[in-house]
Amino acid sequence: MPEPLKDFISNFITLPEGDWEIIQKKFNREVFKKNEIILEEGKICRYFYFLERGLIRFYCNVEGNDITKMFCVAPYCFTSKVSFRNQSAAGEGIQALTETIVWKIDYTQYKNLEKINSWNVFMRSLLNDIQEFMDNRLLESKVYTAEENYKNLMKRYPGIMAKIPLKHLASFLGVAPQSLSRIRNNLYKNERS
Amino acid sequence: MPEPLKDFISNFITLPEGDWEIIQKKFNREVFKKNEIILEEGKICRYFYFLERGLIRFYCNVEGNDITKMFCVAPYCFTSKVSFRNQSAAGEGIQALTETIVWKIDYTQYKNLEKINSWNVFMRSLLNDIQEFMDNRLLESKVYTAEENYKNLMKRYPGIMAKIPLKHLASFLGVAPQSLSRIRNNLYKNERS
Repeated sequence: MPEPLKDFISNFITLPEGDWEIIQKKFNREVFKKNEIILEEGKICRYFYFLERGLIRFYCNVEGNDITKMFCVAPYCFTSKVSFRNQSAAGEGIQALTETIVWKIDYTQYKNLEKINSWNVFMRSLLNDIQEFMDNRLLESKVYTAEENYKNLMKRYPGIMAKIPLKHLASFLGVAPQSLSRIRNNLYKNERS
Repeated sequence: MPEPLKDFISNFITLPEGDWEIIQKKFNREVFKKNEIILEEGKICRYFYFLERGLIRFYCNVEGNDITKMFCVAPYCFTSKVSFRNQSAAGEGIQALTETIVWKIDYTQYKNLEKINSWNVFMRSLLNDIQEFMDNRLLESKVYTAEENYKNLMKRYPGIMAKIPLKHLASFLGVAPQSLSRIRNNLYKNERS
């Protein structure tokens, strides 16, 4: 029983018990090991996921470089949106960065969920939440230097940051791994001096 | 009669004629002069807009600096999403960069539109379209230098780029105006040599 999903949905909307009974039956549990690929770039994303535990990254290959587009931390929902919606090849991959527990629902079952009004209201709130987050990320990437962005992330998510390999954090921040090493070393020196 | 809005919606969905009759009556025309403020930062955004003609920018003040978050080119729809949805103070402003023609609908009337199924399907498609665009912008801002981003924009939107003041383009690209001047001059020199 994915009770953490119920709690998650209830953060956004008032979920009628009858709707929850229908929703919960459609989700199946799956566990991914650390570094396991959840979705390969170029494959069709067949599922919508609830991330119960763990940390994942969205990545894509740009001119031979592995770029981390975004991280997602439990509890949250995720999918490769365009690929899932159109059931077409994904322009991005998804990887578990820690051992990860998900609850998933396939496309056909998901379409059935869309007949439930409370689910649609939940999804609209969730999409708004994601868009606000993306808006802020885009703004921060314009306004702040990589060093300032790194410091902000360290303040907000210290525990999570420690679990992310340097190379992924660097491409997420839009800098070379060597530059991020330098930023980290400077901050560490300043803290000790 | 905002026929361009009808054409715009029809790019996303099949719009029943009866629905259009209801929709079109709710929109009112307004014209903004070049540089006029459409929404002041901190005020409540009371309207959802269709941009029939012109070019606008979304901006916000970050630590005393006027940062351009995004541009929007006709024909497209816009609003300050969070502010409009919650009828709360906007964390951003909207300015017309050219003479601009909009069709607008207020919050109460907009809520009535949400009773029309085709409108909801249209809005979902539109939000997806916006999110894909934002995703790509965020990725490009990570992967490419300001110079490469500038070149890409010049290739895609040469006519529009010429209408945007340098300072707004610079903050949009996340660089100082002087840096963007230098980038432009270098490109111009290379083209001539």
